Amino acid sequence: MKIYTAHPGHHIEGLARRDAERPPLGPRDVRVRMRAVTLNYRDLMVVSGNYGLGSDPVVPVSDGAGEVIAVGDDVQRFAVGDRVMGSFFPDWTEGEPDAWKTKAALGGSRPGVLAEEVVLDQDAWVRTPAHLNFAEAAALPCAGVTAWNALFESGPWRPGERVLLLGTGGVSIWALQLAHAGGLETVITSSSDAKLERARALGADHVVNYLSHPEWDRKVLEATRGEGVHRVVEVGGKGTLPRSVTTLRPGGALALVGGFAGFDGAIGPMSLMIGAKRAFGVFVGSRKMLEDLARFVEARALRPVVDTTFDFDDARAAYAHLESGRHFGKVAVAVG
Amino acid sequence: MKIYTAHPGHHIEGLARRDAERPPLGPRDVRVRMRAVTLNYRDLMVVSGNYGLGSDPVVPVSDGAGEVIAVGDDVQRFAVGDRVMGSFFPDWTEGEPDAWKTKAALGGSRPGVLAEEVVLDQDAWVRTPAHLNFAEAAALPCAGVTAWNALFESGPWRPGERVLLLGTGGVSIWALQLAHAGGLETVITSSSDAKLERARALGADHVVNYLSHPEWDRKVLEATRGEGVHRVVEVGGKGTLPRSVTTLRPGGALALVGGFAGFDGAIGPMSLMIGAKRAFGVFVGSRKMLEDLARFVEARALRPVVDTTFDFDDARAAYAHLESGRHFGKVAVAVG
Amino acid sequence: MKIYTAHPGHHIEGLARRDAERPPLGPRDVRVRMRAVTLNYRDLMVVSGNYGLGSDPVVPVSDGAGEVIAVGDDVQRFAVGDRVMGSFFPDWTEGEPDAWKTKAALGGSRPGVLAEEVVLDQDAWVRTPAHLNFAEAAALPCAGVTAWNALFESGPWRPGERVLLLGTGGVSIWALQLAHAGGLETVITSSSDAKLERARALGADHVVNYLSHPEWDRKVLEATRGEGVHRVVEVGGKGTLPRSVTTLRPGGALALVGGFAGFDGAIGPMSLMIGAKRAFGVFVGSRKMLEDLARFVEARALRPVVDTTFDFDDARAAYAHLESGRHFGKVAVAVG
Amino acid sequence: MKIYTAHPGHHIEGLARRDAERPPLGPRDVRVRMRAVTLNYRDLMVVSGNYGLGSDPVVPVSDGAGEVIAVGDDVQRFAVGDRVMGSFFPDWTEGEPDAWKTKAALGGSRPGVLAEEVVLDQDAWVRTPAHLNFAEAAALPCAGVTAWNALFESGPWRPGERVLLLGTGGVSIWALQLAHAGGLETVITSSSDAKLERARALGADHVVNYLSHPEWDRKVLEATRGEGVHRVVEVGGKGTLPRSVTTLRPGGALALVGGFAGFDGAIGPMSLMIGAKRAFGVFVGSRKMLEDLARFVEARALRPVVDTTFDFDDARAAYAHLESGRHFGKVAVAVG
Repeated sequence: MKIYTAHPGHHIEGLARRDAERPPLGPRDVRVRMRAVTLNYRDLMVVSGNYGLGSDPVVPVSDGAGEVIAVGDDVQRFAVGDRVMGSFFPDWTEGEPDAWKTKAALGGSRPGVLAEEVVLDQDAWVRTPAHLNFAEAAALPCAGVTAWNALFESGPWRPGERVLLLGTGGVSIWALQLAHAGGLETVITSSSDAKLERARALGADHVVNYLSHPEWDRKVLEATRGEGVHRVVEVGGKGTLPRSVTTLRPGGALALVGGFAGFDGAIGPMSLMIGAKRAFGVFVGSRKMLEDLARFVEARALRPVVDTTFDFDDARAAYAHLESGRHFGKVAVAVG
Repeated sequence: MKIYTAHPGHHIEGLARRDAERPPLGPRDVRVRMRAVTLNYRDLMVVSGNYGLGSDPVVPVSDGAGEVIAVGDDVQRFAVGDRVMGSFFPDWTEGEPDAWKTKAALGGSRPGVLAEEVVLDQDAWVRTPAHLNFAEAAALPCAGVTAWNALFESGPWRPGERVLLLGTGGVSIWALQLAHAGGLETVITSSSDAKLERARALGADHVVNYLSHPEWDRKVLEATRGEGVHRVVEVGGKGTLPRSVTTLRPGGALALVGGFAGFDGAIGPMSLMIGAKRAFGVFVGSRKMLEDLARFVEARALRPVVDTTFDFDDARAAYAHLESGRHFGKVAVAVG
Repeated sequence: MKIYTAHPGHHIEGLARRDAERPPLGPRDVRVRMRAVTLNYRDLMVVSGNYGLGSDPVVPVSDGAGEVIAVGDDVQRFAVGDRVMGSFFPDWTEGEPDAWKTKAALGGSRPGVLAEEVVLDQDAWVRTPAHLNFAEAAALPCAGVTAWNALFESGPWRPGERVLLLGTGGVSIWALQLAHAGGLETVITSSSDAKLERARALGADHVVNYLSHPEWDRKVLEATRGEGVHRVVEVGGKGTLPRSVTTLRPGGALALVGGFAGFDGAIGPMSLMIGAKRAFGVFVGSRKMLEDLARFVEARALRPVVDTTFDFDDARAAYAHLESGRHFGKVAVAVG
Repeated sequence: MKIYTAHPGHHIEGLARRDAERPPLGPRDVRVRMRAVTLNYRDLMVVSGNYGLGSDPVVPVSDGAGEVIAVGDDVQRFAVGDRVMGSFFPDWTEGEPDAWKTKAALGGSRPGVLAEEVVLDQDAWVRTPAHLNFAEAAALPCAGVTAWNALFESGPWRPGERVLLLGTGGVSIWALQLAHAGGLETVITSSSDAKLERARALGADHVVNYLSHPEWDRKVLEATRGEGVHRVVEVGGKGTLPRSVTTLRPGGALALVGGFAGFDGAIGPMSLMIGAKRAFGVFVGSRKMLEDLARFVEARALRPVVDTTFDFDDARAAYAHLESGRHFGKVAVAVG
């Protein structure tokens, strides 16, 4: 079978397509013929050598969807023909994270899904929403679950609350769609008016161009009657943290997601203390969150925004497109 | 000013329009010129003498909206001209209920809002959503808050979960609209296919005619892939309780709201124990819930369904219409 | 190896000690030499044929502790020599219950632990608290987890709240110890002043003899300054349900645990609705709850109350002692 | 009556005892003859001019207890003779904080309690636990509520979890007592072995001298079997923040309380993201929290640690003692 390997520190040029042995199938394993994967900023960090992996080549990419082609003797959850997605942390089925559950991560400490076939324990797979194609379904495991976790899993919330989304990358656009469908009032920022128009079409209630308004936190406060937002999905970027905290109303929450630009600066403890605000790290999420996300996506017939789908042979071009920042939503690669 | 009084035990015929003194205005009080009220089954119970009040006449009805025409010297929350709704329990501002907070209830132990003017402490009023007329706004305090409380306040929930609504009365239709806008998958029952069609237009994902399907719990299970619903808003009725519990998935919740028909029968403890199900009483709700509901209604531009608005002089006809069960949504009375 | 079998419908006399083959060891399995088990009312229901099992003999009892004597090749969580307890539902590791997780139960739909050796997946075992002997550790899986779940897992609570415990059986005494160590104010009932004195020594703040005070709900209200309790651990019995609901303050919760006598009667929905009370079924609990309980028991050096430990040969006497109701706390059987 | 005034920027020397008019009594007001107050680091910040108040003299101190000597005509919650404590934010009765609720704070934007008589709305007072003297009761409103809020109000927790407390100031010692009585496993740090011994007597399970062990985070990890703690009550100090985050287990929480030394440095967002940790500001708390704390303190007969009680004439000496850092627990001033 064909796979890709990434060589940490060798950048996009280090991505190589090669032949590999089919992995063996244990009694609880499920073998999946991958049909599509999607990329995350983390995949750029892996090839650039900034993800804390060693220097050996790895099979990259965490997010993929495909079709079950074989199951082990003890497998009860799936059958041949099922359409499935892999879970980012294959050992984190549900509940709070711990060191044990988050040790293995696809496309990192464990081989990824940029390969024709992938074998994982039955507990690491989830059925895809019926109305999605494979590229769309491949958008759920990391970016979708991260957005879900940032919005709905950390602390109580109520429909009608206000949430701020920064930029139009994969997690932010997912968060926009989920927040809108979940009854939240949304504010989103971008440097592009064109992208803001697209965001409005996806349900954004308020849009702010942070190039035209470098003090965008003030615009967010204006848009929310001076009250501020209940939650920010903070994907990083230059100088965003203090402004994000400023936009929070008392008791508001900062979901720390990270992203392409990394975080710039740190969180002043007094800025959280006054107003009883909070910040929490979002470490992707569990299989249970992926299942809950899939149910919601299906119930509301949400379609993740896939910017472009590249051919399997053009995986490097897909990485380069993601790196360019020109995308809106997810960048995908079809597998075979 | 004109008011109505209800005479417990004297039924709808006991409703009398009369003149009354304008109530005095204390330093923290807000005087409101009522513009519309809406009726609840509770208002029928009051006139029929089944609500546990004494035999003296009372000013009936809990749910009204109008315009502020005067404020006391210490009032900071409102100004003349504000459009406001009264809160069902004027002393329950927020948090869990207690005996103290729920002692006073409008149109029950405290004079109600079927009157040209109503005076209450500033803490008992909430601004109306800007896009609603007075009759629509008057639909929020009891029926809207009850639906909100049943869906969103009691225990954790996630968008994409499934909820069952029984019938098409005021609370059920509110719950349908709120659940749909909050990202829940909805099932609703009725004895009328015409009403079910209207419910579908309001966002019902599945509809069940309980006349055609007396074992409607089975249809609900079918509609939910055999899994059952996460929550039932149980408004009472003949023999509904055991079927409602049956439709719940493990860990599911039964919101006990009560209603016209009252509850028939009781909840078997073993039926809750197996599957770790739960039941909880919904006792209308706090002013904070009314505020949160109003924010959600405004953020999503929801419009409560008002079946008919009767003239102030025809309040008895409004009561009779509610009693007939022919309505879909709320029955309102315009005040002056 | 030696095992016991129970014959549903043949009562205690149907319990038979016999020889059996040692179960095989799969790659993820852990083999445990049992050292002690404890009994629950459920075990009496199994022998009496009232537990919904078929008529074939089963290896009874859910709660046991012992020593690891062998592990499969893929086992990472345990090593030979570890002291462990089995989890009641071997497939429910954490999170909310579902039909899948609660299908298998030890000593019911799956062979139990009244046997010299037991083999289960590594995910079904938990380390025992270091300070407990095997009989004490064997008290945790069903009775301990049930008490834990009833007190700490269902809805928010705060130290200083008040909880009512009914009688002095295994779950109630566990709940008394856990509630006291967790900072709750406790009220407990019994028909025996001697047992109430023992309960007081274990931390009961208030005691009520329900024989001397048939209207014991009034005494509970008196003991709580007329305010009522925040939670009742309701283990069933003649006529207890309505009185239990009466003792609840507004917003209070009834944990339905069931027990020897079964429940008598049902829960009136209006009694929950007024005061926004709630009732929830406690279906034992997950492995995660057993782990959390074990950590708490160890952190506070709690010792479960073991009434009597019978020899393996005298298992029938142990069942008979439980049935007599003369015990205080748990009835145990040493295994070899 | 006698009062003290503090002159922001004039330090302890600026504290002046003077005569003042008795405040008037409105219809909802309660007049209290103060009997004792306790000091917080905030009170040092006020006199040093670092609390953001203007330059005008203010009546200082937020925490006091005394006896009701008069009530307004509409007061229902209290009667003459009741022993009460004032709530830090007199307008924050319960629920989440907002700008409105936290605008007024005693001894800051509103006159404080270092005075013979204090008049506040009935909603701003709470009964003292019956077993406490006035100096002990005066320890609850700010330091006690802060510790309570940090431990029990922000996010779910379970008995048996582990909590780290830094130093032996008022909040940390309160947190130690509350955590121990609530079933938590406690670790506490100090630079003094003598203070650590006193902490052990109050229930500390593990103690760490941070002078002997400058890498005290390692000792905390060792004490918790390498797993880390579930929660840190972070009262500030030189270089504590990164070490506090290191001691947290995945999903753990950092309660930001602030204190004498202020915070040094900031929180790195990646240190929260990896491991899904969280940080939240603790902004004292509501009257409801003070009531819940008082109930817990009474139920468990907890006695706050009062280091020294100074005479009313010696208020300056009390401030100086707090500033010296030699205290263990609270510094009090008797009023008349």
